[in-house]
Amino acid sequence: MKEVKVKKKKKLYEGETKILYETDHEELLLLAFKDDVAGDGGKKGKVKGKGAVNNQVAAHLFKYLESYHVPTHFVGLHSDHAMVVRKLEMLPFVVVMHNVATGGLVKRSGSKEGQALEKPLLEFYRKEDKKYASQLEEKAVLEAGSVNEEELVAIERMALKINAVLKAFFQRRGLRLVNFRLEFGRYKAEKLVLADELSPDTCRLWDAETGEKYDPERLRKDAGKIEEAYEEVRRRVFSKPGAVAA
Amino acid sequence: MKEVKVKKKKKLYEGETKILYETDHEELLLLAFKDDVAGDGGKKGKVKGKGAVNNQVAAHLFKYLESYHVPTHFVGLHSDHAMVVRKLEMLPFVVVMHNVATGGLVKRSGSKEGQALEKPLLEFYRKEDKKYASQLEEKAVLEAGSVNEEELVAIERMALKINAVLKAFFQRRGLRLVNFRLEFGRYKAEKLVLADELSPDTCRLWDAETGEKYDPERLRKDAGKIEEAYEEVRRRVFSKPGAVAA
Repeated sequence: MKEVKVKKKKKLYEGETKILYETDHEELLLLAFKDDVAGDGGKKGKVKGKGAVNNQVAAHLFKYLESYHVPTHFVGLHSDHAMVVRKLEMLPFVVVMHNVATGGLVKRSGSKEGQALEKPLLEFYRKEDKKYASQLEEKAVLEAGSVNEEELVAIERMALKINAVLKAFFQRRGLRLVNFRLEFGRYKAEKLVLADELSPDTCRLWDAETGEKYDPERLRKDAGKIEEAYEEVRRRVFSKPGAVAA
Repeated sequence: MKEVKVKKKKKLYEGETKILYETDHEELLLLAFKDDVAGDGGKKGKVKGKGAVNNQVAAHLFKYLESYHVPTHFVGLHSDHAMVVRKLEMLPFVVVMHNVATGGLVKRSGSKEGQALEKPLLEFYRKEDKKYASQLEEKAVLEAGSVNEEELVAIERMALKINAVLKAFFQRRGLRLVNFRLEFGRYKAEKLVLADELSPDTCRLWDAETGEKYDPERLRKDAGKIEEAYEEVRRRVFSKPGAVAA
């Protein structure tokens, strides 16, 4: 993939796992992927090389989707761990696409954990609802005013298409696309395009044969566990001693 | 603990998990602990806060040992993740102290995994022998010429005393000191003192009740597994697709 040359300018925003920078090009931003593990306010770790993996995977999938005429914010790779993207007005909701029942969906759908859904399920959540605690009804999405009815239908169609394309992509590579999160933005006050990232941090992927999980929870939990282990030793070393065990 | 003020100068040596710097004080060095996970040439990760934990744990244990008149290279904390230590000529071997049979020792001792040894076992290894593949006989240690017979006996006594002190220290905090690695150095061409670190990276600690392992292998393995998971997803994304699974 060709690298796009822009100059990194002011930091616009830093999240848990990514940083967005202005560039010397007014319509382009630099999206840099960090090695940090996303958590929910708890202990966080770093996973060496994770930023590069997510950047490269997302770039590859954005390009692949573009070849199926899905518009994305991706412009080109900038470096190992950063890509050049279009500057968008982000929509204030996320779309979650499900192909397999898991977690909270098991209860909601009545399916068993790991069971394929009869057809893909599309859900909306508020962006701030990091735990996907309560779905947004279509009505609420429309009332929030960021998109009109026609645009909402267009987004649903785009999400279903992205799901179909990616599901087949991963299936041919021995991975089940269990579910994933999508974000959209508005380019030049008009066109709606796919934004954010597509990576192991936003896609729940399971090995089709062995069921091994490459999903965000596991990656987060494993990383957390190591730090907890170190912290636990520190806690014990600095703790007041108890009685000598037999 | 009071912080010792020295100015960091030239980097002397960088290992997998620590960096040694010269300081503006001729006899003192700065030992900085990194967040990197020690591996053996394979994929390595970072564990956020690990450097600080190891620095603080080692400082605490060195101070504790000094209170039992065990001489160490520790001078004082410098920061969260660095300590000031005495400049030493390091001895070219490590001492491994065992209290519990585990791993290779199970075979060598005829004890069961996790069984307490009748008395502590002391072993010498070459420093380069990172896998503790073949023990050094006392004779070989002496022939290498870094210490004389009297000094070797002194080191063995020191190691046994350190073991007794730390074993009781950890026992009172609900942890079994299964085994640990010690390094020694020579201060001002004469006095032999304990060097390197004492931390979850060099001490194999198990919870006395639950048996939970806070040991170097586990910490290393867990860290490695997360990166492998990310790498595996990257590998699949960039792989040539196979046949569509049923």
